[in-house]
Amino acid sequence: MKEKVYEVHSRVTFETAEFSIREDTVIHANGQQEIHEILQSPEGVLILPLTREGNIILTKEYRHNHGLVYGVPMGKKEKNDINPLAAAKREIKEEVGLSATKWTLVSTHYNGIHEEGYNYFYIAEGLLHGDHKHDVDENIEKVEMTFEDAFKLMDEGKIVDLPSRACIWAGYIHVQNRSK
Amino acid sequence: MKEKVYEVHSRVTFETAEFSIREDTVIHANGQQEIHEILQSPEGVLILPLTREGNIILTKEYRHNHGLVYGVPMGKKEKNDINPLAAAKREIKEEVGLSATKWTLVSTHYNGIHEEGYNYFYIAEGLLHGDHKHDVDENIEKVEMTFEDAFKLMDEGKIVDLPSRACIWAGYIHVQNRSK
Repeated sequence: MKEKVYEVHSRVTFETAEFSIREDTVIHANGQQEIHEILQSPEGVLILPLTREGNIILTKEYRHNHGLVYGVPMGKKEKNDINPLAAAKREIKEEVGLSATKWTLVSTHYNGIHEEGYNYFYIAEGLLHGDHKHDVDENIEKVEMTFEDAFKLMDEGKIVDLPSRACIWAGYIHVQNRSK
Repeated sequence: MKEKVYEVHSRVTFETAEFSIREDTVIHANGQQEIHEILQSPEGVLILPLTREGNIILTKEYRHNHGLVYGVPMGKKEKNDINPLAAAKREIKEEVGLSATKWTLVSTHYNGIHEEGYNYFYIAEGLLHGDHKHDVDENIEKVEMTFEDAFKLMDEGKIVDLPSRACIWAGYIHVQNRSK
């Protein structure tokens, strides 16, 4: 274990709409210095919509860097979202045209060991297919499938980002344990 | 679906030891432009060491930004690692003083939707506690526990990074499905 930290000096070294990088200089009680770089992100939300039949609803969209891929609805908490749940409710409406009556917070985490900014993962149940035509992102397709279908898409490299994979894994465990 | 991309101009806007950010200007066939920011990382490896008894071995360490936390052994692929598996073998030796005779690649993914750089997650079995005193990072403690213990640590906020959580979730599913 490290000895107690004496002083920390922080400065933001890079900032854009998506990313902000902070450099922390940590000075230990013995005078030893370390520099840590931290990726700061706004808070985010991830949602796994779960149907009454036990299927999941994923997005299918073209991503500039990854190609045509599937994933879970996700997004950043915006200024008008009073809390993460409000952000999650907005995101599943915008991305897959759904609302939900039952929300379960499954995981609160950071995206990586050098990162800050909480991400909140919810399972959404009691799904309602509302008339959200005007809100829905037209570049995103909504696809319903079984967990097994999703595992196959992972094997085929069509679900490529860890946040989406992680939500599907955690959602699967959540459903399995509940039905025991 | 978006129409076919016509041209992409890329430039690195920020680069440090840990992070590199690339800005891609995408010009569509209709002349429309979009800017995408991509976080580029070196390839990484994540390892879940699994004992004969079905327990897992985690790291316990003080992280500057997250405090005293548990996680899976992980690290970057370095220049001398001929492939990701070599990096994984080096990392579990350095972080938890282990070697393993059976390696299973469970997931190849990106860390996020705006990120590039593959990460490889392995389950390591046939564990050997070698005499690795000289290699092992003295700031990392090795802790053996059940999957249930790890789920409890997540609930208590003591496993905070998604990559560690995801490997534990995927590892749990892997073991459950194998024993069916």
